Amino acid sequence: MKTRFELQDSSFEKRVRESFASQRVMSLIGAELSLVEPGVVEIKVPVREDLTQQDGYMHAGIVTTVLDSACGYAAFTLMPAGSSVLSVEFKVNLLAPAVGDVIRVRAEVKRAGRTLTVCIADAFADQNICATMLATMIALPSKRAPLT
Amino acid sequence: MKTRFELQDSSFEKRVRESFASQRVMSLIGAELSLVEPGVVEIKVPVREDLTQQDGYMHAGIVTTVLDSACGYAAFTLMPAGSSVLSVEFKVNLLAPAVGDVIRVRAEVKRAGRTLTVCIADAFADQNICATMLATMIALPSKRAPLT
Amino acid sequence: MKTRFELQDSSFEKRVRESFASQRVMSLIGAELSLVEPGVVEIKVPVREDLTQQDGYMHAGIVTTVLDSACGYAAFTLMPAGSSVLSVEFKVNLLAPAVGDVIRVRAEVKRAGRTLTVCIADAFADQNICATMLATMIALPSKRAPLT
Amino acid sequence: MKTRFELQDSSFEKRVRESFASQRVMSLIGAELSLVEPGVVEIKVPVREDLTQQDGYMHAGIVTTVLDSACGYAAFTLMPAGSSVLSVEFKVNLLAPAVGDVIRVRAEVKRAGRTLTVCIADAFADQNICATMLATMIALPSKRAPLT
Repeated sequence: MKTRFELQDSSFEKRVRESFASQRVMSLIGAELSLVEPGVVEIKVPVREDLTQQDGYMHAGIVTTVLDSACGYAAFTLMPAGSSVLSVEFKVNLLAPAVGDVIRVRAEVKRAGRTLTVCIADAFADQNICATMLATMIALPSKRAPLT
Repeated sequence: MKTRFELQDSSFEKRVRESFASQRVMSLIGAELSLVEPGVVEIKVPVREDLTQQDGYMHAGIVTTVLDSACGYAAFTLMPAGSSVLSVEFKVNLLAPAVGDVIRVRAEVKRAGRTLTVCIADAFADQNICATMLATMIALPSKRAPLT
Repeated sequence: MKTRFELQDSSFEKRVRESFASQRVMSLIGAELSLVEPGVVEIKVPVREDLTQQDGYMHAGIVTTVLDSACGYAAFTLMPAGSSVLSVEFKVNLLAPAVGDVIRVRAEVKRAGRTLTVCIADAFADQNICATMLATMIALPSKRAPLT
Repeated sequence: MKTRFELQDSSFEKRVRESFASQRVMSLIGAELSLVEPGVVEIKVPVREDLTQQDGYMHAGIVTTVLDSACGYAAFTLMPAGSSVLSVEFKVNLLAPAVGDVIRVRAEVKRAGRTLTVCIADAFADQNICATMLATMIALPSKRAPLT
């Protein structure tokens, strides 16, 4: 597979899929991983009434939940085996109400560093862009490393 | 009630509580409105296993969902009767893992304008700060106004 | 000129160039408007020693000054005649040191609304991306309108 | 000096003042370091016509330059001797036009970690808040360490 990014672990897809499967909130909201490539991840989630805010749109926080996971895993594809990923910070602009049948999120790595990786992601509600994220992710050397 | 903010609608608390009750995602995650004052809103949510990410911490997106609702309603307390509130954008820094029994979020209005209101909010996991938000909210003149 | 954006004022370029010329800080730092198209603006600024931080790189705030003006004017190209533009907020990720001879910034409108316009911009230091911005701009109905 | 933060280097003030003095852009815009305490830094800058945008207000990017330096040095007060500080990212909300005689910026550490430190800062134009920043700073182990 050709890519503009340098892979440090050829089994990145397995690693991402296993970690995604362990995010219990993804099951709760019905999100599915629809694409995993070096530096790119897509996630789809159906619009459901139990995920809405006061106007009946998908809550911005739920859209953010999907954007954040997509950015985290896009960064994670490029990290070495045995590492762990955490969100440092993200910024989201809400561009239009999240209405329709399905929200599709596509995240891409903007710049991968040894410790910090910056990602961008767009969320689409039935083909219309509804939100965009600019995020910073951090690689932790090992899954079991303490956070302090 | 004394406040550093100018109230435009003395029934602000009723308005906030009704709108919060109509946010179906708040029921899904078990969030409760614990304080509503002019320019200030607090929300509590129990840490639950079905809201976690891959390391067993509350997912940053769920913490963001609560931070966003708290900021939106803090802004909404100061808006005129008949208006509606939507998130324009927010930025979140994750400061520590969201672990413990309860996440408590406190949002305050930083500056209220006629159209845009800027809010800050902190999230605490059992007394330890775990995340902070800086957000922009917009007042729409009427609940039924189209968004375009 | 074909564009994916709807123009409200065919004299947008004249409007942008006049406003840019009145930004005195652009003269101070030696910035020049190098491209003005519907929804897109580019600005170039030479790297100068009197604009540096403690390590001899261009200060992140100066890069931000250019990113902000580029986003503002990208948004301004799509606004109606007689309107004014102000920054609501922006977020910048610093991706690499701003070193080299020239910093080139390219800003594009991500979504243009009646009141709020969201823009993205990248800054390049001699072809290498060094910073990225996600910004919200607001259209004020008239240049002379009070801000309150 | 009592502080809620743990100091790693008692000569923090000397370190901050020397680094600030080497930021040449601070001289260009006339900024002065007015307070250096553990986790807190204040900077003042006179409003000057050559720093303005199209409406005659101080350019948001110049206000950001001061906010960014203040956040960086607030973080730097708590870092160990021999370390260096760089901005990872920041987000700024513009709350009111930066008018008046002097802009005063106060930055505080929100959470100091081993590698990343999160700061908040407010900018005041003649006592009125005009902007606020939420920023992430990174400690580099040594001034001479390569950035890659």
